[in-house]
Amino acid sequence: MKVKALAAHSAGQELKPFEYDLPSISGDQVDIDVETCGICHSDLSMLKNEWGMTTYPFVPGHEVSGTVHAVGPEVKHLKIGQRVGLGWYAGSCLTCKSCVGGDLNLCPTAQGTIVGRHGGFASHVRARSAWVSPLPEGIDPKVVGPLFCGGITVFSPIVEFDVKPTDRVGVIGVGGLGHLAVQFLAKWGCEVIAFSSSPDKAEQVKKLGAHQVVGTRDQAAIEKLSGSIDFLITTINQPLDWDKLLGVLSAKGRLHFVGAVLEPIKVGAFSMITQQKSISGSPLGKPATIAKMLEFCTRHSIAPMVEFFPLSKANEAVAHVEAGKARYRVVLTNDL
Amino acid sequence: MKVKALAAHSAGQELKPFEYDLPSISGDQVDIDVETCGICHSDLSMLKNEWGMTTYPFVPGHEVSGTVHAVGPEVKHLKIGQRVGLGWYAGSCLTCKSCVGGDLNLCPTAQGTIVGRHGGFASHVRARSAWVSPLPEGIDPKVVGPLFCGGITVFSPIVEFDVKPTDRVGVIGVGGLGHLAVQFLAKWGCEVIAFSSSPDKAEQVKKLGAHQVVGTRDQAAIEKLSGSIDFLITTINQPLDWDKLLGVLSAKGRLHFVGAVLEPIKVGAFSMITQQKSISGSPLGKPATIAKMLEFCTRHSIAPMVEFFPLSKANEAVAHVEAGKARYRVVLTNDL
Repeated sequence: MKVKALAAHSAGQELKPFEYDLPSISGDQVDIDVETCGICHSDLSMLKNEWGMTTYPFVPGHEVSGTVHAVGPEVKHLKIGQRVGLGWYAGSCLTCKSCVGGDLNLCPTAQGTIVGRHGGFASHVRARSAWVSPLPEGIDPKVVGPLFCGGITVFSPIVEFDVKPTDRVGVIGVGGLGHLAVQFLAKWGCEVIAFSSSPDKAEQVKKLGAHQVVGTRDQAAIEKLSGSIDFLITTINQPLDWDKLLGVLSAKGRLHFVGAVLEPIKVGAFSMITQQKSISGSPLGKPATIAKMLEFCTRHSIAPMVEFFPLSKANEAVAHVEAGKARYRVVLTNDL
Repeated sequence: MKVKALAAHSAGQELKPFEYDLPSISGDQVDIDVETCGICHSDLSMLKNEWGMTTYPFVPGHEVSGTVHAVGPEVKHLKIGQRVGLGWYAGSCLTCKSCVGGDLNLCPTAQGTIVGRHGGFASHVRARSAWVSPLPEGIDPKVVGPLFCGGITVFSPIVEFDVKPTDRVGVIGVGGLGHLAVQFLAKWGCEVIAFSSSPDKAEQVKKLGAHQVVGTRDQAAIEKLSGSIDFLITTINQPLDWDKLLGVLSAKGRLHFVGAVLEPIKVGAFSMITQQKSISGSPLGKPATIAKMLEFCTRHSIAPMVEFFPLSKANEAVAHVEAGKARYRVVLTNDL
């Protein structure tokens, strides 16, 4: 099958129309008719080959919403025309210790949708069926794409680390990931404190469910929160004074990283020891948790706040995201 | 009551005979007739005022085994003559959020046995009853002292972080704490890998229950363990390449600090993110966990391996510990 796509042909180049052939479908493969595709910061990093693993021509896009176009002979649980989504992962081995334990996201050979293969800035995208998630009735398919990367990245640790509705929680960074974390945690029943470097966002962040918005570098306000936060998730990729932030955690509290901070995290052993604190990180969530997230979003009317661009204007859209102007996620609608 | 003790009168000075008066017993206080008292590295740090919180004259000792000498009017559950132990903590507020939740060890105003008060290198030591733990029948009171500091420090995280008998675990450092961690984890049902900088200990460490002993700086052996350890507890106070050690953890693994490493811990965010790993620390355990530990030790014949010195030769004993010669803990028998 011929796929119409947009691709960059070398690091940092503009996206240009690009066609490629998909071989005949087989095994547990699923081809998706792309309707919309979100833009994630990882797309930008991959476009510029910041992580050294981009292959060109490079078709970005891993926050896909669409319908099933075709299925391989082993796929019995998905029907052609069914509404589905696809995120960062497009395949796992299904046989390793993590996979057989249900943690397909921790499979050491999990295949990234845009790593060594072509993504969702395209008419179609292919994936293995375990990673193709059916959309529940009642969810808006147009805005759902960002849930499959940004959304599940912050939803998964809430489940994995057993955040309680009685917890006081913090979200550092209110962007593509953070604006979803705030919504999830507010509907989870928690007291939510958002840490933002853009004070102009405060009113909107409160509308998303935050009970308090604090400046990320407002030392006096952070001091006041000392010892009070059970679960603090950081979605940003900039370094902060992590040792100081451990101070806002309650006894047994956790500082959790989903943001790709490149500088080493530096903390004192005693900052963890005296009040039994933890630091951790996690990648995207597993398919079972994606299904829970979609149900939770449907039940609580949680949705990404997005700005739409046509896919044909992807370069403008990418520049908009790069400039930090997205409120809070950009979604491309397929007009190829 | 007059208490006979040994005290240092300034930082780094020898211990000398010292007498002090205990005021009349009151409230929930318990006075213990000291029979034996272990020597912990914290005693050495406090003797030298390394943590800046020592007051002189300073009476060390917080691994006490003895009998109840007297109880305050509020104490109904302990009887005079009953065998008990006392560790690092001698009191908690009993009213804060941590205390009412059972975590008396995380009470922000928990009172250290040798912090601003006199410890167990003495004929008697006083504590609040919540921290005076009855010894079960069948445990050897002479060697039990080190369980109340070194022992509970490594037993508590096994309980708190829900280590499973099916886990593969690692213990870094086989000294006063580590030789107990190895025994606990072996009897817990785990596969135990000990990391030691003294290869001469290997045979003995295997007798304690380790299935494998690896050199702490043996990069080739560490490389081989890549991705295989679920829970790795470090008991040493020297810095290691922590980021590299995260590599030996399995998906969802935990690197746990109980050793007082003074240099900041430095790790990459991605080292935690990709396989959902955690780093944490913990102090001593709570009284409820001390009781569990004592029962577990009794059931499984777990005991500290100790060398005895008379309390009157405490200076020699301290020098022996300081020289790293203790195999694995020194216990002083009261001959004052």
